[in-house]
Amino acid sequence: MASKKLLAGITRTDRTLMDGRTIRYYDTQGQSRTAEDQRPVEEQPVIGEMRLDPLNNEWVVIAAHRQGRIFLPPKELNPLAPSRPGFLTEIPESDYEVVVFDNRSPSLRPPEGAFDAPHDPHFSTPPVPAAGKCEVVCFTSNYDSSFKDLSHAQIRTVLEAWRDRTHELSQLPFIQHIAPFENRGEEVGVTLNHPHGQIYAYSYLPPKTARMLDVARNHFSQTGRVLLDDIIARELADEVRIIAQNSEWVAYVPYASRYPFEIHVAPRRSVADFVALDESASEAFAPIAKEVLQRLDGVFGVTMPYIASWHQAPVREGRDVMRLHWQIQSVRRAPGKLKYLAGSESAFGAFMMDLKPEQSAQQLREVKL
Amino acid sequence: MASKKLLAGITRTDRTLMDGRTIRYYDTQGQSRTAEDQRPVEEQPVIGEMRLDPLNNEWVVIAAHRQGRIFLPPKELNPLAPSRPGFLTEIPESDYEVVVFDNRSPSLRPPEGAFDAPHDPHFSTPPVPAAGKCEVVCFTSNYDSSFKDLSHAQIRTVLEAWRDRTHELSQLPFIQHIAPFENRGEEVGVTLNHPHGQIYAYSYLPPKTARMLDVARNHFSQTGRVLLDDIIARELADEVRIIAQNSEWVAYVPYASRYPFEIHVAPRRSVADFVALDESASEAFAPIAKEVLQRLDGVFGVTMPYIASWHQAPVREGRDVMRLHWQIQSVRRAPGKLKYLAGSESAFGAFMMDLKPEQSAQQLREVKL
Repeated sequence: MASKKLLAGITRTDRTLMDGRTIRYYDTQGQSRTAEDQRPVEEQPVIGEMRLDPLNNEWVVIAAHRQGRIFLPPKELNPLAPSRPGFLTEIPESDYEVVVFDNRSPSLRPPEGAFDAPHDPHFSTPPVPAAGKCEVVCFTSNYDSSFKDLSHAQIRTVLEAWRDRTHELSQLPFIQHIAPFENRGEEVGVTLNHPHGQIYAYSYLPPKTARMLDVARNHFSQTGRVLLDDIIARELADEVRIIAQNSEWVAYVPYASRYPFEIHVAPRRSVADFVALDESASEAFAPIAKEVLQRLDGVFGVTMPYIASWHQAPVREGRDVMRLHWQIQSVRRAPGKLKYLAGSESAFGAFMMDLKPEQSAQQLREVKL
Repeated sequence: MASKKLLAGITRTDRTLMDGRTIRYYDTQGQSRTAEDQRPVEEQPVIGEMRLDPLNNEWVVIAAHRQGRIFLPPKELNPLAPSRPGFLTEIPESDYEVVVFDNRSPSLRPPEGAFDAPHDPHFSTPPVPAAGKCEVVCFTSNYDSSFKDLSHAQIRTVLEAWRDRTHELSQLPFIQHIAPFENRGEEVGVTLNHPHGQIYAYSYLPPKTARMLDVARNHFSQTGRVLLDDIIARELADEVRIIAQNSEWVAYVPYASRYPFEIHVAPRRSVADFVALDESASEAFAPIAKEVLQRLDGVFGVTMPYIASWHQAPVREGRDVMRLHWQIQSVRRAPGKLKYLAGSESAFGAFMMDLKPEQSAQQLREVKL
């Protein structure tokens, strides 16, 4: 297949895996990617269903085929490694820079034929196919690496992959929202230790995104301003929770954090999504991303579990009021101690924080890099 | 202090602990509770603060004094045991049935003087004192017991304590919502293994309660009916997810469960809260409560972690549209495997379920009791 040219001299080459899934190689050296997937042909799992939870008016996805998936294999059985003679993985090539491939056990899948998501579902809305798309993003072929250990050039390639996927997934008529995220650490349920993230492309607005959109719309109608612009202005004015900044990005512990260590990273200039990020903002991301993740691991001198999620405007609405930003949340509150989401947080959504955001910001700032 | 007479022949006796906190003994034999707390006088921690998270328009409580609290002490240092010579605990008496006392490290506390919670907070609302109340409910003095092992009479006493606390806390002018819950298992962050629950009384509507209220109000305005009435009617009609019922209560795996094992238990007749539960519904609760928790532990033959939360109408609104019910949610999806709330669930609120609700209902029904 022909390769496609992206920004920053990156090329993308698409190949097809044994079950028809697509793998996309993002390369900086114009590599030729011709290796065939030599594993036996396999059927893809059937699509799951989405049911409306009537009590909260929220979709829940049921993908019952996922129970048997692989769980913390040892390094020599890592399915995200490049393939080698005698051990065939998800990546047919013998090496790679960044790859994005369709998840083998996806919670969400492209529907067959036209998909009609109920727009204003309520109470007795029947189940619909779990439409959407789940992709895996391998940040590097090096198992022993981590996002914070990547070079600036590698992070630039990952960012370009996120941008390219956002652009392409936005074209699919059944996609409403695109959410790249990374889970790191067995404490947050990671099942593969290889440095990787995921992209969930939803056919509905995820509940927290829908909430953020409502709040941002209200703020806009009351003030005429974009909510996150005002939030960043307040963080810059307060100053005490800022932990890193450069000409294009600012990183802060938010005023009302929910987690013992929580960092938000936003571009200074308002952009709705990855696609709207310009070249200079893209170039300036790697240094601040490395810095905040190094600070996070430096607080206790241990590798911190985290969930790092990208929030951007939904594909088809709220594009004038929502802004791209990155949220990093860690449940580690001390060496050997985690914050659990128990009764108040989990059942009622009411977060109780043991650590002042100003204190965790200071701890993060004091880390020697 | 004089004891107070409750339903079902239960008496309540209030005593004061060394730092001014109240402990309430709920007894069935009219016991006299005169033991003094002999621990040295201690200052109570200061009240925390609530900050409005502007991005989601939700309150977050910051209670920085809680970091140092006790963590999984061995049985002989259990602070919820009755006191004995040489080891003084939170409960001055040498034995007890059910006690409810003010939490020693509360996230929420009664405010000094008048409390004015901002009613429609937005963006730049300044922080306010973390007003509310946190109480601990000991289900039994027996460390090795569990809710499901209690006798019918013991559960009746716990229920009466929940009812009495709901009634009394509802009188406090700064309380908006009352939430009894139990966390069980180290997997959900339990720090004390003694069988106990908690009551959080919030000075604001917790986010998930506020959401449920919105949805219930919409349903009522569209149909004239109470949402949970319609949900229960649908569960009874579908039948496949019912796991237990008696003349007064019905227990089901909800149509759109979020957790591998999730059970909702509701009284057949619509009541807004504990206070409105009548005698026959109260009497019929213990057998179904024991049955569902025994079924839960029976699925894999291991003690299941769970969060069991009571949802009732808020104190001052929505009392015509919200209904009392009990939600039990377990993150265990197989022996040795937990469901984690990672990127999709935690960052976007979008739940992905690996198990069909009908399948988990069948597994629960098939448990031999």
